[in-house]
Amino acid sequence: MSKIFLTDTTLRDGSHTVSHKWNTDDVRKIVTALDAAGIDLIEVGHGDGLTGSTINYGFADYDDFEIVKAAASAIKNSKLTVLLIPGIGTVEDLKKAQECGAKAVRVATHVTEADVSEQHIKAAKKMGMFTVGFLMMGHMASVEKIVEEAKKMESYGADVVYCTDSAGAMLPVNVKEKISALVKNLSIPVGHHSHNNLGLAIGNSLAAIEAGATYIDGSLSGLGAGAGNTATDVLVAVMNKMNIAHNADLFKTMDASTNALLPVLEAKGVKANTNLDTMILGYAGCYSSFLLHARRAAIRFNVDVREILIECGRRKAVGGQEDWIIEIASDIAKLKK
Amino acid sequence: MSKIFLTDTTLRDGSHTVSHKWNTDDVRKIVTALDAAGIDLIEVGHGDGLTGSTINYGFADYDDFEIVKAAASAIKNSKLTVLLIPGIGTVEDLKKAQECGAKAVRVATHVTEADVSEQHIKAAKKMGMFTVGFLMMGHMASVEKIVEEAKKMESYGADVVYCTDSAGAMLPVNVKEKISALVKNLSIPVGHHSHNNLGLAIGNSLAAIEAGATYIDGSLSGLGAGAGNTATDVLVAVMNKMNIAHNADLFKTMDASTNALLPVLEAKGVKANTNLDTMILGYAGCYSSFLLHARRAAIRFNVDVREILIECGRRKAVGGQEDWIIEIASDIAKLKK
Repeated sequence: MSKIFLTDTTLRDGSHTVSHKWNTDDVRKIVTALDAAGIDLIEVGHGDGLTGSTINYGFADYDDFEIVKAAASAIKNSKLTVLLIPGIGTVEDLKKAQECGAKAVRVATHVTEADVSEQHIKAAKKMGMFTVGFLMMGHMASVEKIVEEAKKMESYGADVVYCTDSAGAMLPVNVKEKISALVKNLSIPVGHHSHNNLGLAIGNSLAAIEAGATYIDGSLSGLGAGAGNTATDVLVAVMNKMNIAHNADLFKTMDASTNALLPVLEAKGVKANTNLDTMILGYAGCYSSFLLHARRAAIRFNVDVREILIECGRRKAVGGQEDWIIEIASDIAKLKK
Repeated sequence: MSKIFLTDTTLRDGSHTVSHKWNTDDVRKIVTALDAAGIDLIEVGHGDGLTGSTINYGFADYDDFEIVKAAASAIKNSKLTVLLIPGIGTVEDLKKAQECGAKAVRVATHVTEADVSEQHIKAAKKMGMFTVGFLMMGHMASVEKIVEEAKKMESYGADVVYCTDSAGAMLPVNVKEKISALVKNLSIPVGHHSHNNLGLAIGNSLAAIEAGATYIDGSLSGLGAGAGNTATDVLVAVMNKMNIAHNADLFKTMDASTNALLPVLEAKGVKANTNLDTMILGYAGCYSSFLLHARRAAIRFNVDVREILIECGRRKAVGGQEDWIIEIASDIAKLKK
């Protein structure tokens, strides 16, 4: 399978979850962590795109351009992207975002309305930005229709086109069908963006990858509108398990959730969707009863608890063999010396 | 695809989440709702199976047999099942469970240890019980090994054999491979039980169904050990969307979560894993912004909010068309007269 490029939208789609109340400190902290984790594109701004901060879509604490500037000041390797919904944001807004440091834009329209993206995609390309066509509510168009609309975006100059399951309404079989058709009919890469309403965000992301999508969206711990997005951290774990190539580092992506996002959410009284303790147990293939013992051993031998669990899984430790954890932690500590 | 038979394990695997502290009232309430929803098998008892209430596995509030009796008193159409892990529970315990009203048993062993289930499966069959072989930690055996172990359970007389992903460590590709091999090599039905550690409980359940499994486990709102189980309510919704035959009623399964389980959990200070509001939005394929308006219209016209949302999805209402909701609710109300 081809290499996957990840776009993390914690600071854009996830902004719905915090009522668009990220501040510039939050943004710098989370962007720094995502950048360190090797996420390809980091999306920031109001949940409804550039200048979405209105009475209709919810007022944000800071304006989008301050958020873009803060993100740009923290980013080193990742590409900084904004979302623009024609009708909410304008080409002038996009120019301002670029001046503030945005390198990419995702121009989003309803799945049957690609026409309205023409001037924005063309303008973005002329401005030298990496430009993604983002077809929202992908479940509402037939395969033929979504191909037709995607081809329009391609013709305007888009570098990538997404089939976006905004309502979390798609099934793996639908995703496969639509992504396959897009891959077959376009000469640019195809992306997919999932929501977890039917518990299928990860399952649908895998179906998209299987069908040839190479751009996949996620958000840390699945933070996002409705039931949340595909969890970037979980997706990275699953891709590792499947030997799918990508640029992200699993532990650093988890750290971005645990050390950067969660304290920010806690301060806002918002809960994350994903438990990374149970995730790493599944990744390792260990019994839950191992976690507490592994945590103790991690402190005792000064090693990462995740490495202990992964090694327990590799050695096929089963329930009742918790004593083995000490030996494993000690072995890991020795290897590190 | 063949018809799917659902086993709900809220009151067994979900019992881990409440530290095995269901009381007989909780059990009666939840069993009544599951039974009304058309769930085929309802599993009750300690999370680690019959007589698991020990210092090792966690003391329960009531003994398992009281729980079985309470469940039996509430059940009308579903089959009442218990779980038995040889080494924790005994054949004597099983006899007692049957006297209390259990009609089925799932005899559970580590995936490589089917041998230890021989006497229990044979005894259960002799007692006239519906008998399921339950191979736990299914990710820890190769395809060949799990087939070999499942064939043993079949030879002891099991009516069904499960590949159980106890650690939530399997990927759809693994599930497909193992379930297909079991279906091919056994002459009895094959089942699958997922956990959501990698966000794949629903995705893996679908992969299992696609590969020919006809028995699938879930728990209300995904309540269960670790990251939780496949959410029965979400699975029913997804199967409806895929036109997969089963015996459950979607709204009544959701009601079992919302009206029976959630108040019980709330009293215990435990949170559910699944948000059924966002689930029904995904099922219907509607924008989140529709929910509040649909709720108001549901009260005004005395119709089910879920019917309104589903009809909005059917009519392909999009953002900005919230006014349509009133008309739709009124139409539904008229049709009901």
